[in-house]
Amino acid sequence: MTKPPVKAIELWFEFGSNYSYLSVMRIEALAAAHEVQVKWRPFLLGPIFQALGWTSSPFVVQKEKGAYVWKDMERQCAKYGLPWTKPTQFPRLGLLPLRVMLAAEGAPWIGEFARRVMLLNFHRDREINSPEAIGAILAELGQPVDTLLARATSDPVKARLRAQTEEARARGIFGAPTFFVGDELFWGNDRLEDALAFAAGRPLDASVQGG
Amino acid sequence: MTKPPVKAIELWFEFGSNYSYLSVMRIEALAAAHEVQVKWRPFLLGPIFQALGWTSSPFVVQKEKGAYVWKDMERQCAKYGLPWTKPTQFPRLGLLPLRVMLAAEGAPWIGEFARRVMLLNFHRDREINSPEAIGAILAELGQPVDTLLARATSDPVKARLRAQTEEARARGIFGAPTFFVGDELFWGNDRLEDALAFAAGRPLDASVQGG
Repeated sequence: MTKPPVKAIELWFEFGSNYSYLSVMRIEALAAAHEVQVKWRPFLLGPIFQALGWTSSPFVVQKEKGAYVWKDMERQCAKYGLPWTKPTQFPRLGLLPLRVMLAAEGAPWIGEFARRVMLLNFHRDREINSPEAIGAILAELGQPVDTLLARATSDPVKARLRAQTEEARARGIFGAPTFFVGDELFWGNDRLEDALAFAAGRPLDASVQGG
Repeated sequence: MTKPPVKAIELWFEFGSNYSYLSVMRIEALAAAHEVQVKWRPFLLGPIFQALGWTSSPFVVQKEKGAYVWKDMERQCAKYGLPWTKPTQFPRLGLLPLRVMLAAEGAPWIGEFARRVMLLNFHRDREINSPEAIGAILAELGQPVDTLLARATSDPVKARLRAQTEEARARGIFGAPTFFVGDELFWGNDRLEDALAFAAGRPLDASVQGG
């Protein structure tokens, strides 16, 4: 008997993105329930928005939508049982933790790392780009802080983040979070359940849904 | 004993809007299950988008998002069990049926009228702005065609549609469908279940959701 191929979902996300926060917090538990593997795909939203002609997040550029988004985040976090504090700075730069995700790609602790960075931004309302803040999270996880920070800021890892951002643009990504299952793109935290059902080979179900 | 106030949800929608199609088709059955009354609020998206600085639908202006939206519509319609044909013209002008909704406000058949206009656009891929097309739907519903079309194109009804569009803008609406429950705004078909739960006084539930 041949083994069936491992089913996988790619999560393309940014640490500055509030809707990415919802998916980063939710995806591992849901994917495990669907027996689907999570592939973490950090990228930079800034160059994507610039390519679309925007100078910042659409939630900053479009003030009506921006006003709504913070209300929506309160309600969505209450629905999912996630903590929420509106960040006093938005969007926050999270270049260093994105690079750490790539420097430690495939490590079993990167999901937990991603959640702790997100909680720092969207629950504790703190900066997420300093070696001190990110080093503290790595230390909590029992990882070698200096080695990982050095690797994260090395030229090959910096180049990988640029390349992954370019790949995002080339694959038609226009916001975050975005999920890929093979070549199928699903946009937004509201589509996480649909994307997982698709990855698991189940029909999308209107009555069992989280988003 | 005093009666509890009737719980209501306002559906702000446009016949040219594809995500409005999903909500127009779904709302009456779901609202009835929640014992919530539906208030139909037709308005024009064009002036809203112009106020935001866009020349057309964001799905036309932003080509990456546009490409995604048609794929998403296929999947969402399959999920909800709704028919779907990508319109050969988008967005379609639906000024006349919007005016009919106002001319017949409060009539018990306007939900069915709205669904048939939406199916004409997003299933049969036909124009929705001619007196012939709209008259045919009114006749199918057993309504007085000439009287209603005359009322729909009268100055007071034209003025009401303009006023309702201005109200949409003043209340912070930036897209369709939008739901209001009292002063609480919920944006997008993905929030219909949340808005109904809120209207019914139930907590939002991450495990029973359709969007």
